[in-house]
Amino acid sequence: MSDPTPAIIPVLLVGGAGTRLWPVSRKAFPKQFAPLLGAQSLFQASALRLSGTHFDAPIVTTNGDFRFIVTEQLAEIDIAPQAVLIEPSARNTAPAILAAALHAAATDPDALMLVAPSDHVVPDTEAFGASIAAGVPAARAGQIVTFGIAPTRAETGYGWLELDGPPGDGPTPLRRFVEKPDASAAAAMLAEGRYLWNAGIFLFTARTMIDAFRAHAPDFLPPVEAALKGATTDLGFLRLDPKAWSRLPDLSIDYAVMEKAPNLSVVRFSGHWSDLGGWDAVWREQLPAGAAGGSVTDPRSTAIDCTNVLLRSEADGVEVVGIGLEDTMVVATGDAVLVAPMSRAQEVRRAVAALKDKGARQAEAFLRDHRPWGWFETLVLGERFQVKRIVVHPGASLSLQSHMHRAEHWIVVSGTARVTVGEQVTLMAENQSIYVPLGALHRLENPGRVPMVLIEVQTGAYLGEDDIIRYEDAYARG
Amino acid sequence: MSDPTPAIIPVLLVGGAGTRLWPVSRKAFPKQFAPLLGAQSLFQASALRLSGTHFDAPIVTTNGDFRFIVTEQLAEIDIAPQAVLIEPSARNTAPAILAAALHAAATDPDALMLVAPSDHVVPDTEAFGASIAAGVPAARAGQIVTFGIAPTRAETGYGWLELDGPPGDGPTPLRRFVEKPDASAAAAMLAEGRYLWNAGIFLFTARTMIDAFRAHAPDFLPPVEAALKGATTDLGFLRLDPKAWSRLPDLSIDYAVMEKAPNLSVVRFSGHWSDLGGWDAVWREQLPAGAAGGSVTDPRSTAIDCTNVLLRSEADGVEVVGIGLEDTMVVATGDAVLVAPMSRAQEVRRAVAALKDKGARQAEAFLRDHRPWGWFETLVLGERFQVKRIVVHPGASLSLQSHMHRAEHWIVVSGTARVTVGEQVTLMAENQSIYVPLGALHRLENPGRVPMVLIEVQTGAYLGEDDIIRYEDAYARG
Repeated sequence: MSDPTPAIIPVLLVGGAGTRLWPVSRKAFPKQFAPLLGAQSLFQASALRLSGTHFDAPIVTTNGDFRFIVTEQLAEIDIAPQAVLIEPSARNTAPAILAAALHAAATDPDALMLVAPSDHVVPDTEAFGASIAAGVPAARAGQIVTFGIAPTRAETGYGWLELDGPPGDGPTPLRRFVEKPDASAAAAMLAEGRYLWNAGIFLFTARTMIDAFRAHAPDFLPPVEAALKGATTDLGFLRLDPKAWSRLPDLSIDYAVMEKAPNLSVVRFSGHWSDLGGWDAVWREQLPAGAAGGSVTDPRSTAIDCTNVLLRSEADGVEVVGIGLEDTMVVATGDAVLVAPMSRAQEVRRAVAALKDKGARQAEAFLRDHRPWGWFETLVLGERFQVKRIVVHPGASLSLQSHMHRAEHWIVVSGTARVTVGEQVTLMAENQSIYVPLGALHRLENPGRVPMVLIEVQTGAYLGEDDIIRYEDAYARG
Repeated sequence: MSDPTPAIIPVLLVGGAGTRLWPVSRKAFPKQFAPLLGAQSLFQASALRLSGTHFDAPIVTTNGDFRFIVTEQLAEIDIAPQAVLIEPSARNTAPAILAAALHAAATDPDALMLVAPSDHVVPDTEAFGASIAAGVPAARAGQIVTFGIAPTRAETGYGWLELDGPPGDGPTPLRRFVEKPDASAAAAMLAEGRYLWNAGIFLFTARTMIDAFRAHAPDFLPPVEAALKGATTDLGFLRLDPKAWSRLPDLSIDYAVMEKAPNLSVVRFSGHWSDLGGWDAVWREQLPAGAAGGSVTDPRSTAIDCTNVLLRSEADGVEVVGIGLEDTMVVATGDAVLVAPMSRAQEVRRAVAALKDKGARQAEAFLRDHRPWGWFETLVLGERFQVKRIVVHPGASLSLQSHMHRAEHWIVVSGTARVTVGEQVTLMAENQSIYVPLGALHRLENPGRVPMVLIEVQTGAYLGEDDIIRYEDAYARG
C-alpha cells in the first residue's frame, strides 16, 4: 500500500438470515458464521482479510442475537474489535454505515473506512489488498470508492456498476448503479466490458460519508446521532438507542446515498469473488480451480456414479451416499437433510418457509444454541428426561437460577467447573459430578483457562427452556 | 379352514443381510426387524399372520447374531416360539428347512408345516389364510404345496412357477420352476396366464419333506440329523452343532429339493404380496391403493414440487426436505443419508460396499446396538468422554464387569435399577445416580416390570467397547 498510515478501519456488516444456505445457515446462526469453506467462518475470513499492518481494529455492526457469536468468533482468530455496534432492529445497511462513520469521526473525521459484507468469499487477500491500496488516494481526496468485481458471467442476481469506459488499474468515475438486470441486459453488459458487479464494498473517509448523508439523505443524521448519543455500553457492546433507531427507514446504502452521490469512483477487482448466494455457489467454490463441473464431496460423503453433485455432511457421524445423481445437491446436518437439483438452489428458502409453516424448529433454530457464556445442545430428549452437552467459555458464568419442574445431574467431562448449589460452592474437575435438586438455586461457572464441557442430565415432567428463574445474570438477561 | 386340527406349525426363516434397504436395513439389524411399514416389523407381521387358532407355536430358524432380536420382537407381540434353532453358519434355506422338519417330526411326523420368509408383505391375512386352507388336503395327502403369487407385472427379479394350465381355486400340479427370466420371457409368462411368482412359501408334512430330502438330496440328512443331535440348549435357544452343520452345502430348498420333487402342487394366491426388494417397492407399498405414482412422505419429511418421490426420515428430530425432485428416493437415519433415483433401487447395495471399503461403521452396524439384555446407543463421543443411552429389559441383567480405562456415571431416568459396585448393591429409582470408579467391579440389572433407561457418562482416555472384563454373564458371553 502506498502510504499505510493512518490505517483503514474495517467496518464489518453482520446481519441477515441467509435462508438460501439452509440447513447450514439458519436465522439463529446464519451463513457468515458457518465454516462453509475451510475451517474458518466467512465472517472470520472477512475479518482476517481486513487485518494486519494496513488495518486498524474493526468496527462491527450487528444485532443483539449475534453479538456473542461475533465476539466469540473474533476471539478465536485473535482480533479485538474497536467497537461492536448493536442495532436494536434491522434497518438495512444505510443506518449501520452512518453509525459506524459517526462513531469513527468522533475520534478522527479523516479516518479511512472500508465497509464490507461479512459473508463473501475473496480467496486472494493480496490482490484484494492491492485493489484497496489503489483506491486509497481517491478516498483521501474525498471520493467514495467502490470495488467492482470483474464479471465472469451474465449474472442476474447482482446489481452492476456502469463506468464511462473500460476500467484500468486505478479508480474510474462511476456513471451509474444498475439494478439486478434481466438475462439479456446482463449478457449485453458482460459483452461490453465497462460494467462490473457491485459487491457492496466501499472505501471512504468518515467525513466523506457523513457529508454524503448530509447531502443526499439528511433525514438519517438526527436519528443515528441520537442513537449513538443514547447508546449504552453493555459488556463491551455499544447498544444503540432503540427509540431513536426505530425512527430510521429500512434502506440500503446504495439507495440512500450511493445512487445519488456524484463523488463515486470504482476500482476494479479482478481476483476471485463470490457472495455464496446458494449451494450451487458453494459447489462452484469447491470445484478444482478452472473446472466447470465435477462432484464435490467431503470425508463423510460418498458419490457413486454421480455427475456434478454436491454431497455435504455437516454432522459428525452422519454418512451421506448418493447413487446415480446428476446436478443435485444434498446437504445433511444433524437434524435436517436438504435434497434438490442444483438449478433450484435459489428455492432453498422455500424449505425454510415450509418448515416454518409446519412449526419445525429446524426452520430457524440450530441444534447448538449459542449463549453469551458458550453453547449447549440437546443430545437426547426423552419422555421425562433430557441430556445436554454444555460448553462454557473460560471465565464465563451462567446465571444464578432455579427450575420449578426439573432436577439436574451435572458431570464435568473436560476442564474445571465452579458450581454453586444452594449455599455450597464446589470446584469440580473432569469426572466429577453433582446433583442439583428441583427448586435449588444454582450457578455454573468456568473459572479455568480452557473450555469446560459438562454433560447435563435433566429429569422431570416439564423440560422446556422457559422453566428458569434468573436471580443474577452477568449478561443482563431477564 | 376346513379341518383346523392338528394346527399348522409355521416355520419362520430369519436370515440375510438385506443390503438393498440400507440405511434402514443393516447386517446387524436387517430389513425384517425394521418397522418398514407401520409400527410392526416385517418379522412381527409375518409371525402374527401365521398365528391364531389354525396355527401352532412357530419354529424360528436364525443365526446367533439375531437370536435376541427374534425373541425380543416375538415377546413384544406375545408370541412364544416352540423352538428357535440357531444355525451356526449361513447355509441358505435347504438345511434350515430340513432341520425344522426333523425337529417337528420328533414329536409328530405328520405335523403340517408352513415355511415362509419373514420379510415379505402380505396385508390380507384372511385371503392368505384361505389359500393355505386350500392347500391343506393336498399337503396331508403327501404333496409339497407351494403358494404362487398371481403376477401383476413382467418381473425379472423373481423366479416363476409354470403350471400345466391356468390355476383354479385349488391345488394345481407344478410343471417346473423357472429361474429369474429376462424381460421378454417375463412378458411372455405374464401374458400366458399359467405362470405365477415363486414366493418361497411351502406347506407340507414333516414326513413329506424328510422323504423328499431322502429321495432328492440324501446328503443333507446325516449332517442335519447330527447337528440336531449335537445341539445344545442355551437360554431357550437350540444351538445346532457347528461341526456337523459346517459339512452342509450352502443351497436353497428350490435347488436341493423342489426342482426335483414330482409331488409338487401350486395354490394361487391372488392377494397383494411384495418381497420389499428395494426402496422402490417400499415406496409402491405406501402409495394410495391403486395409484401408479405419487410422493410418499412421513411426518418428518416435506416434498416441495416433487413428483414420485419417497422421502423418509427414520430419526427423531431429523427433518428431510426435497425440492423439485422426480422419481427419487431419500432415506435418512440418525447416522446416514441415502439419495438415489428410484430406478437405481437395486444398486443401493453399492452404498453398503462403498462404506465397507471406507471402513464406515454405517455399512453394517446400527447406532443402536442390540444385546441380550436390551440395547444401547452412543449419544455423543467426545475427546475423553462418551455419553450413552442404555435400555435394559425388565428382569434382564448385564454381565458383572470392570473396565481398565474408564470411569462411569450412571443416572437412572426411567424405571428401576439394581446396581452392584464392588460389594455394594443399591436399588436406584428415576433421578438417582451412582459413580462407578475405574477398575471397580460392577453390574447393572433391571429388577422391575418396565424397561429401565439409564444415561451413562464415561470418562477416560480409551472408551472402546473392548475395554471390558467379564466375570459373570447370564448370556454366556466371553
